[in-house]
Amino acid sequence: MFEAAELGHKLSKREYERQLPELRARLVQVQFALKQAKIPVIIIISGVDGAGKGDVVHRLNEWLDPRGVDIHAFWHETGEVRERPSYWHFWQALPPRGRIGLLFGSWYTEPVTQRVYGRIKEPELDAALQRIAWFEEMLAHDGALIIKLWFHLSKKALHERLSKLEKKPETHWRVLPTDWAHHKLYDKFIRVSERALRGTDSGHAPWRLVESTDERHRDFTAARLILEAIQNRLAHSAKQKVTPSRPAPKISITANGDRTILDRVDLNQSLTRDEYEEKLDKYQARLNRLAWAAYEIKIGSVIVFEGWDAAGKGSCIRRVTAAIDPRLFRVIPIAAPTDEERAHHYLWRFWRHVQPDGRVAIFDRSWYGRVLVERVESFARPEEWRRAFHEINDFEEQLVEHGTVISKFWIHISKDEQLRRFKEREAVPFKRHKITPEDWRNRQKWDAYKAATNDMVAHTSTEFAPWTLVSGEDKKFARIQILKTLCAHLEEAL
Amino acid sequence: MFEAAELGHKLSKREYERQLPELRARLVQVQFALKQAKIPVIIIISGVDGAGKGDVVHRLNEWLDPRGVDIHAFWHETGEVRERPSYWHFWQALPPRGRIGLLFGSWYTEPVTQRVYGRIKEPELDAALQRIAWFEEMLAHDGALIIKLWFHLSKKALHERLSKLEKKPETHWRVLPTDWAHHKLYDKFIRVSERALRGTDSGHAPWRLVESTDERHRDFTAARLILEAIQNRLAHSAKQKVTPSRPAPKISITANGDRTILDRVDLNQSLTRDEYEEKLDKYQARLNRLAWAAYEIKIGSVIVFEGWDAAGKGSCIRRVTAAIDPRLFRVIPIAAPTDEERAHHYLWRFWRHVQPDGRVAIFDRSWYGRVLVERVESFARPEEWRRAFHEINDFEEQLVEHGTVISKFWIHISKDEQLRRFKEREAVPFKRHKITPEDWRNRQKWDAYKAATNDMVAHTSTEFAPWTLVSGEDKKFARIQILKTLCAHLEEAL
Repeated sequence: MFEAAELGHKLSKREYERQLPELRARLVQVQFALKQAKIPVIIIISGVDGAGKGDVVHRLNEWLDPRGVDIHAFWHETGEVRERPSYWHFWQALPPRGRIGLLFGSWYTEPVTQRVYGRIKEPELDAALQRIAWFEEMLAHDGALIIKLWFHLSKKALHERLSKLEKKPETHWRVLPTDWAHHKLYDKFIRVSERALRGTDSGHAPWRLVESTDERHRDFTAARLILEAIQNRLAHSAKQKVTPSRPAPKISITANGDRTILDRVDLNQSLTRDEYEEKLDKYQARLNRLAWAAYEIKIGSVIVFEGWDAAGKGSCIRRVTAAIDPRLFRVIPIAAPTDEERAHHYLWRFWRHVQPDGRVAIFDRSWYGRVLVERVESFARPEEWRRAFHEINDFEEQLVEHGTVISKFWIHISKDEQLRRFKEREAVPFKRHKITPEDWRNRQKWDAYKAATNDMVAHTSTEFAPWTLVSGEDKKFARIQILKTLCAHLEEAL
Repeated sequence: MFEAAELGHKLSKREYERQLPELRARLVQVQFALKQAKIPVIIIISGVDGAGKGDVVHRLNEWLDPRGVDIHAFWHETGEVRERPSYWHFWQALPPRGRIGLLFGSWYTEPVTQRVYGRIKEPELDAALQRIAWFEEMLAHDGALIIKLWFHLSKKALHERLSKLEKKPETHWRVLPTDWAHHKLYDKFIRVSERALRGTDSGHAPWRLVESTDERHRDFTAARLILEAIQNRLAHSAKQKVTPSRPAPKISITANGDRTILDRVDLNQSLTRDEYEEKLDKYQARLNRLAWAAYEIKIGSVIVFEGWDAAGKGSCIRRVTAAIDPRLFRVIPIAAPTDEERAHHYLWRFWRHVQPDGRVAIFDRSWYGRVLVERVESFARPEEWRRAFHEINDFEEQLVEHGTVISKFWIHISKDEQLRRFKEREAVPFKRHKITPEDWRNRQKWDAYKAATNDMVAHTSTEFAPWTLVSGEDKKFARIQILKTLCAHLEEAL
């Protein structure tokens, strides 16, 4: 593959200087246009170490308006990065709509390096590449323009370049010890990289090779490829075409609220006050110990609460937080997104709340809004919420792979019980604020929500993150069921 | 002072249960009201270790609606905290308007502990307390309701409590080794704490003592004090009265643009193309080495760019970033605040961008907007922007104390030169987007901006963070002046 980037391309100084002003002018122009069009642009700078990727980043930063560019270099892993799933760092670096993220190093670095050093086998590399492909596809679906540049240098050219840099005192510092180590591994690196590029080349995120022997040619080509990609995107529809690599979920989507998985929840279960108090003490004490034990060995938890309006999410959450040391948990209430959140992919606002290892994140409503309220209220188009099942499973799988314990609760109540609680809320002065016209409107869509819930459970109750349907008619029973489940999940993980 | 919290207060179980429902109802009610009123509430939970502060946090979290509460415990310092000035962590924990931040541990913990252990002397404690007083005053000015609760326990009561907890197997784990260590230091701790409380007690952030021998009395009193403070605040004006502890700056505020410090900038300085290119190479190479050297010993930099429209901030920034490894710097362009930023004190959006040790943060416009555009356009009231001089100096002093090197540049050009550049921008197609009607409007207020700049320099050119006025008429000269200054500042610090 890389032979195509060993053709001896050069750009004369004269030609470079002749063409540069126009190139630069155009770059700044399209940058302005994509700000207006609110397109997020992700530029990945990768390739052979020693090909001058750092210089390219410099050059691009000089030619673009730096006010619209965020440069992210993934090198030193800080504590906050190591204590979270690896993609957390990448999510933090994604540019908001209208801005350019220049990624120096990326999600490709780690899998390729690991494979070159023989620390992972081929199937593991392929799995990592598959994850990358899905990740990029998801971002493309969301409107991101992904420009992937690969800077190539033949082994011979690399050797010459490093030797030359090392000779001069003023450039000596630019050659890192790892550069020579990588030179030794060149052939292996090229083989692994070819596989990586082939496995992740797609219409919506194509790879572009840049021959890097001649510096002027390299920088000019990089800028030209970026310019063309942006121009092309601006000229065509705002939303690019993405060919999905995975079919939409196969399990048929529920049409109405008849006979769903929720109907199988036994709502007649209850506890007496005495039973409740005894069990509450028991499981809260156990959960307290388990949360500390998990903290000690750095196992984190993500707890998701979903359910009907007035199902008792808030009071269940309070019973959970009462058990756990306040230093260990954080409650994240999910309401309307802020404008910073709206400027990103819908999952971004959840990734940003991923806690460091050993902590407990409690989500009061969650990413499942995508397939519940956004589906029912048509805030998301059918292809968007259908796709979300895959996206959500990928997200949760990453958390689980990192060692996080996920517990997801849907608290179920009957429609009659909801009505009773709504009326009660309206009658009690200090509960009145908890009931809004929106709650009544949602209630009218009971069947649509029921169908959506059924699909949600069918598609996202995975072996690594199953749903727990909670019998919520009796609040006492629900609280104990949740505490007991959390204890069981943690015991299993410890 | 603490004798007032050793009176033997108790609350019977019966009385507690009788009064609790109403208290809880009211708490949730006022919580809802303060959300509407967009008041941020900061509750500080501090006092004697062993007085049950953790239990109080639990109880409050149970009684309040946890969806509107963020609990922050300042205990384990993670890497991201250690690598920044100590207040960075507190700024991150400040609640946005309408929410409650429950702070378990706070800005009091460190100075008091350090003094108890004899690691700092009395004057240093007092300086830390002074900083706290100013910090709280600043938050109160911004509308925050600050509720400071001190949980007291006599030495005897503390001993009894720890012994009792330790005896029972189910509560044994709750006694930490530090609890007994602190018991030994009790008398010293009380003396230092008294000084801390006295030094930071004010009308807008008063201390409230809570006798903690009886648990029911303790929890109930804490909740009642919080309720009263919020009710009181809601009943009175939305903006509370804050008596400033420092007078407004004494140096008279400039009335118009005649004879300002800017007139002393020699705008006739220039460089030939050859001089420029030689010096550019020289200082960029030097800055590159210095930035790496600073990174090695974890000295960070903050570089601020301010100046007239079209003064050349962008092109100067590009010459700086071209010199520094992209892994080491971040450019932070300051435009209109996002809604998350608007929900906080105006300095919050700058604190959030404080980089970890050893990195370079480049601000393209900055917190000085408060005393420039916000003053001139009347976005900030006179008392607000006048106060800002102190607030900004405090902010920068904290950065400097932490070891950060601050460089602040005001790029000056003549009014004629600005006109020339505006026209040039309008004439060149790819520069046209850089000129907006707003630029022309700002130009009409030249004298007002000039006066504001004069005051800004007068009040914020401190010994620890002086302003550099840059002669910007010749762009080449300006760039070299900036690069040279940056090198000098870093050399001095290394």
